[in-house]
Amino acid sequence: MSRSGARPTLAVVGATGAVGAVMLRILSHRADVWGEIRLVASPRSAGRKLAVRGEEVEVVALSEEAFDGVDVAMFDVPDDIAERWAPIAAAKGVVVIDNSGAFRLDPEVPLVVPEVNAHAVRQRPRGIIASPHCTTLSMIVALGALHAEYGLRELVVSTYQAVSGAGRAGVDTLRRQLSLVAGTELGTNPGDVRRAVGEGTGPFPEPVALNVVPWAGSVRADGWSSDEMQLRDETRKILGLAKLPVAVTCVRVPVVTAHALTVHARFQGEVTVAGAREIIATAPGVVLFDNPEAGEFPTPVDVVGTDPTWVGRVRRSLDDPTALELFVCGDNLRKGAALNTAQIAELVAAERA
Amino acid sequence: MSRSGARPTLAVVGATGAVGAVMLRILSHRADVWGEIRLVASPRSAGRKLAVRGEEVEVVALSEEAFDGVDVAMFDVPDDIAERWAPIAAAKGVVVIDNSGAFRLDPEVPLVVPEVNAHAVRQRPRGIIASPHCTTLSMIVALGALHAEYGLRELVVSTYQAVSGAGRAGVDTLRRQLSLVAGTELGTNPGDVRRAVGEGTGPFPEPVALNVVPWAGSVRADGWSSDEMQLRDETRKILGLAKLPVAVTCVRVPVVTAHALTVHARFQGEVTVAGAREIIATAPGVVLFDNPEAGEFPTPVDVVGTDPTWVGRVRRSLDDPTALELFVCGDNLRKGAALNTAQIAELVAAERA
Ligand SMILES: NC(=O)c1ccc[n+]([C@@H]2O[C@H](COP(=O)([O-])OP(=O)(O)OC[C@H]3O[C@@H](n4cnc5c(N)ncnc54)[C@H](OP(=O)(O)O)[C@@H]3O)[C@@H](O)[C@H]2O)c1
Ligand SMILES: NC(=O)c1ccc[n+]([C@@H]2O[C@H](COP(=O)([O-])OP(=O)(O)OC[C@H]3O[C@@H](n4cnc5c(N)ncnc54)[C@H](OP(=O)(O)O)[C@@H]3O)[C@@H](O)[C@H]2O)c1
Repeated sequence: MSRSGARPTLAVVGATGAVGAVMLRILSHRADVWGEIRLVASPRSAGRKLAVRGEEVEVVALSEEAFDGVDVAMFDVPDDIAERWAPIAAAKGVVVIDNSGAFRLDPEVPLVVPEVNAHAVRQRPRGIIASPHCTTLSMIVALGALHAEYGLRELVVSTYQAVSGAGRAGVDTLRRQLSLVAGTELGTNPGDVRRAVGEGTGPFPEPVALNVVPWAGSVRADGWSSDEMQLRDETRKILGLAKLPVAVTCVRVPVVTAHALTVHARFQGEVTVAGAREIIATAPGVVLFDNPEAGEFPTPVDVVGTDPTWVGRVRRSLDDPTALELFVCGDNLRKGAALNTAQIAELVAAERA
Repeated sequence: MSRSGARPTLAVVGATGAVGAVMLRILSHRADVWGEIRLVASPRSAGRKLAVRGEEVEVVALSEEAFDGVDVAMFDVPDDIAERWAPIAAAKGVVVIDNSGAFRLDPEVPLVVPEVNAHAVRQRPRGIIASPHCTTLSMIVALGALHAEYGLRELVVSTYQAVSGAGRAGVDTLRRQLSLVAGTELGTNPGDVRRAVGEGTGPFPEPVALNVVPWAGSVRADGWSSDEMQLRDETRKILGLAKLPVAVTCVRVPVVTAHALTVHARFQGEVTVAGAREIIATAPGVVLFDNPEAGEFPTPVDVVGTDPTWVGRVRRSLDDPTALELFVCGDNLRKGAALNTAQIAELVAAERA
């Protein structure tokens, strides 16, 4: 931090996006540690006014000057924009916290989840700190707590990813498709939904209304998707388990916000449901919500808008006393993106004190 | 079969339900091996006329007399009705093929998937043959083929189950909820969807529109759901692997028809993607649809109304050369229910020849 004494200046780069919108709400509600908050987006948005901390703030276009006097910058922009501009900001002495995929696996960039590896924040030779992918973040706080106690040995994960994970365009696409299929008999005959939604599948490769799509991200080697590779690689990096076996299939579902995941987690020794429940119930940032007889398990429509990771359906595998089955759910725009970034930024701000 | 020479008489019990409706369409399209087809349902439906094989047939109420002269009866009714009436029909010499959960794990009742264990159909000391649960059926033909070649050692499965798996009431519930939430901004704020859909969650414990619900079936011991236990127990019985480790979490999704599943399958030795693709592509009743670069993977809206099991996203686990990751998709009302029952009935009819 440069100007000790004064409160640090924060820039939110990508303030007009899906993550940015949630970031402004979060900044308005959390304990306020910031001096000026500067809002940055593309030149298309320059001059727009957005509310943060109860004030209207004018958006400025991304440029080198936008970082003048800035101490901490949150980047909530596409990968290529972050890749280009984060080093420019860092070269001006700004501590950059990046929400994109551009730096997460860079060995000189820490990948931080404050509840799990807050200590990593201080080793940042490039002046950049990365926040994990929303899918990783939706499960990692709960898993980190279980790992600390039981020692993780293997993960098999399937995802139920909300459309807002693909930004505003994802939400708009689902809404448009739903308005075309709702109130009809569609969904019972082959081709019905596809004909109704037409060619416009937005950021998804297939219609997402009344459907599930086993694909998220770009194509990687051997048929893997980038979301799948990221979940594996980021989990290993955050937990410091470089060889952890992770098998994952990522699937998009017609939910607006809040990712869910099923997790089969194998540990070093025997586990008990009572022990696992105790760990989950007492872990910071995690809520145990697990009583099927009373209809209690987390679902996206209840979890949206909340901060914690919700965990339900806690069972010990019937055929393996070292493994647990879990259903985990978290808001991909809050803990999955904006909240985790805000928490990291607050750790950096606290370094001045 | 009693009356050799003449074509056998078939009764469809539950002809008015979600499975029954698909059964009548299937019977109208498959090679016709039946003499009379009698349609049976509750007294509520008696007198209704339904089309099968291009003719209008009047529905009769379920009673002992409804089975007079019947050779084969398909039961597509709730568990308790099947449990009571299947033995009554069998006592009259009718071969019963039951689609409910009432007899699937009875050691004296074979559980049959013609592509996998057709031979089992002849050992039926109670005169009853069971057809598996729709979730099991949506994956078992593909898995059976892989097992025959590689020898299955372990399964980890997560489901994406369509609402029609809960019958007509499930479909009506999703349609009603969708018409209430479509065209709105709902889904971004906590409580929004719940308030919009009100108390009416139909056969589901939570709203299913814009949501995923990690529960299907009734409550079993230790927090498991009946759908989860059935998938494990039925898979073991059909494949003849009494101790196969199976870990599963069942989740309902807002899809009308066609179940999907992610499968992590571990085998006795090393597998190759090329070998697995060859097995899948050549297995009867299975279609390989797997080319992510061209946007090819099965999704429910494309699979609905088709007979086979569709398999995509075939990958070898990155950290285990003996394991495969698959995304499997099948119509829960066709192969998942009516089609499998029809295939079993045809095996029984062929015994006369
Ligand atoms: N959505 C999630 O769940 C999630 C979770 C974790 C991480 N992330 C990551 O967060 C980042 C933002 O995602 P999002 O979902 O918020 O995307 P989004 O809704 O599409 O918003 C993109 C933001 O980037 C800005 N931007 C685009 N091009 C720019 C340029 N040339 N110069 C300056 N600003 C530019 C946009 O400004 P304009 O409005 O002016 O175009 C907008 O503010 C991405 O890297 C994403 O991978 C997203
Ligand atoms: N849906 C699936 O994907 C699926 C897949 C595999 C197996 N199954 C099983 O197949 C069976 C039928 O399921 P479904 O989804 O078709 O259910 P459904 O849509 O609710 O239909 C139920 C059927 O049972 C009849 N019925 C109900 N009570 C009766 C009574 N007291 N006497 C005679 N008939 C009665 C109904 O007749 P009325 O119309 O006269 O009430 C209707 O024909 C269930 O056991 C289910 O578990 C379903």
